[in-house]
Amino acid sequence: MTSYTDLNITPRTLLGPGPSDVAPRVLRALAHPPVGHLDPQFVRLMDEVQNLLRYVFETENQMTIPISGTGSAGMEAAVANFIEPGDPVLVCINGYFGMRIAEMVGRYGGDLVTIEKPWGEVFSPEEVDAALRRRPAKVVAMVHGETSTGAMQPLDGMAEVVHRQGGLLLVDTVASLGGVPVGVDRHDLDIVYSGSQKALSAPPGLAPLTVSPRAMESLKRRESKVTSWYLDLTLLGTYWGSSRMYHHTAPINMNYALREALRLAYEEGLEACFARHRANAEFLWSSLEAMGMQMHVEPELRLPTLTTVRVPDGVDEAAVRSRLLSEFNLEIAGGLGALKGKVWRVGLMGYSSQHRNVTLLLGALREVLGG
Amino acid sequence: MTSYTDLNITPRTLLGPGPSDVAPRVLRALAHPPVGHLDPQFVRLMDEVQNLLRYVFETENQMTIPISGTGSAGMEAAVANFIEPGDPVLVCINGYFGMRIAEMVGRYGGDLVTIEKPWGEVFSPEEVDAALRRRPAKVVAMVHGETSTGAMQPLDGMAEVVHRQGGLLLVDTVASLGGVPVGVDRHDLDIVYSGSQKALSAPPGLAPLTVSPRAMESLKRRESKVTSWYLDLTLLGTYWGSSRMYHHTAPINMNYALREALRLAYEEGLEACFARHRANAEFLWSSLEAMGMQMHVEPELRLPTLTTVRVPDGVDEAAVRSRLLSEFNLEIAGGLGALKGKVWRVGLMGYSSQHRNVTLLLGALREVLGG
Repeated sequence: MTSYTDLNITPRTLLGPGPSDVAPRVLRALAHPPVGHLDPQFVRLMDEVQNLLRYVFETENQMTIPISGTGSAGMEAAVANFIEPGDPVLVCINGYFGMRIAEMVGRYGGDLVTIEKPWGEVFSPEEVDAALRRRPAKVVAMVHGETSTGAMQPLDGMAEVVHRQGGLLLVDTVASLGGVPVGVDRHDLDIVYSGSQKALSAPPGLAPLTVSPRAMESLKRRESKVTSWYLDLTLLGTYWGSSRMYHHTAPINMNYALREALRLAYEEGLEACFARHRANAEFLWSSLEAMGMQMHVEPELRLPTLTTVRVPDGVDEAAVRSRLLSEFNLEIAGGLGALKGKVWRVGLMGYSSQHRNVTLLLGALREVLGG
Repeated sequence: MTSYTDLNITPRTLLGPGPSDVAPRVLRALAHPPVGHLDPQFVRLMDEVQNLLRYVFETENQMTIPISGTGSAGMEAAVANFIEPGDPVLVCINGYFGMRIAEMVGRYGGDLVTIEKPWGEVFSPEEVDAALRRRPAKVVAMVHGETSTGAMQPLDGMAEVVHRQGGLLLVDTVASLGGVPVGVDRHDLDIVYSGSQKALSAPPGLAPLTVSPRAMESLKRRESKVTSWYLDLTLLGTYWGSSRMYHHTAPINMNYALREALRLAYEEGLEACFARHRANAEFLWSSLEAMGMQMHVEPELRLPTLTTVRVPDGVDEAAVRSRLLSEFNLEIAGGLGALKGKVWRVGLMGYSSQHRNVTLLLGALREVLGG
């Protein structure tokens, strides 16, 4: 008979592309005994979660909820609800997650056109406009913080070119929400999702999503049912809205944790939170450059929450990561897709974005690379 | 500025249709700091979770994993992967969750035929066979433990009539797995899913799923991609299988908790666990009958994990539930669908299945109904 020991997982310092470290307060909230998904106490907590999500998204969108799955479930909810078979869709691809959106658009029957850029670069509104002049699109999708490249897509002026031709702007903020300004209403974004386990520093398992009134109107005009029942926003809206109609059993404890993580961001204040993320990232960038290393992304496009560092010539990048993990309990990640083997990915997200964590990483890298 | 207090949720005794109470050991495991989804420590834990799931499913199926969503996501994974547009599907409906399967089959383009029974009754293999003789089906779906009715569908002989005409048997065990024998291999079931938050007593947020080699062969012969990327079993298999390829960020803490909940079942032993569920259910049934109440389902078909009790004439069923919750912190549920207003639903699942909980409920009901 197999025996199973007590859970015996050595904690790490998580400086990869997510999950990030979770604050003790959030872990304690996570472990509170669950109540029912229609308990009046939980219903009040749902309202608070929605309000706090509106705070970090910087939006007044009524439809602002956590999807009961990880960030990719948020992406799929965005695609599944707003794209019907045959709908023209433009996806801007400059990294792994743009490719994933395009893959999902294909699966849901969207008529897909893509524009592409090298990994680490971004799109201008003029480039998006030019693509839309060649063919208009009902939905234009882009990634705000590309975890695979470390580039941050500027959002100024994007909604204007998308809306001018009658489309909706879908933005992936999985790696940016809570760490850098997203400004959903200020940027007039329509469909925006994120993940709980990045700069919000809750455990993985929920995907915050917000939808503009413009996009909700489009949803009402759908001619076909959303293929995914689990991610059908109209049904989800009846549970998260005032009628509280049962849809599926919400992940109760995960919502406890998300509330606490959002409350931490609320107490710190978004501006202070963004400043902390930027300061720690700049400390990382300048220190690595002082050690002779190069960042993959040019300074003005760098994502403070996720840095891609070029692996120095002659260094076995996987061996370095393995030593950081085994000797220092420190997790960073390797490159993904086009950057596989070429960069390390260092996340400074949420509770992981601490000066001391950068200090530890720099010291550990000096030991490992120097030895 | 709105203020948000510390999480202040009064614990309840959860005797509804799920979530059930979570054991302290499981809550502690849940609150352990997360590590990365590709951390060697987490990869070992994934293997353990899979082995323990095989134990409770009573199967040797290689493809046995927790889906990263609640029980309904497990249902959708089962439907989305094994039904292609145009596939003939037979769904046996005798309650709310059979209706939900039928709804999903329609959304994924299945060519749906249903057979129906009054809520609280079950199907015989002969009835399924007769339906399949009228029209064969690639997938036959039924619900083992109907949470909406409290009836338990016998599984003996079902696979034989389904396999004889070349189909796959899909079974919903959301409300039964861990509380009553499911016996996936013994009953030769093909596609079986459950939820973490019922008789397994982990928090809601994961959906155990197991798939027979016969069904995996059918999956390989699909002509179209699975519409849902998030629930695509072939992709999920590359992460949970030996290649460990990144698909989505697994809900790390939820997997800690599921492992601990499964370990509790393993330590108790399945047979002892089933006997405990049955003994507490029989105590509930005989005690309620002694109080003059009637169960909705006839004795030999009753589901030990979920009991439907007919509301006595002249009693305001919602008021009783409300008093149980507010005065005793005790949750039971009302009826769903065809049984709305007619029954209470009392769950004795997992950690909630304790003699003392039945004693508390009986006492509270005596006070509330007598007053």
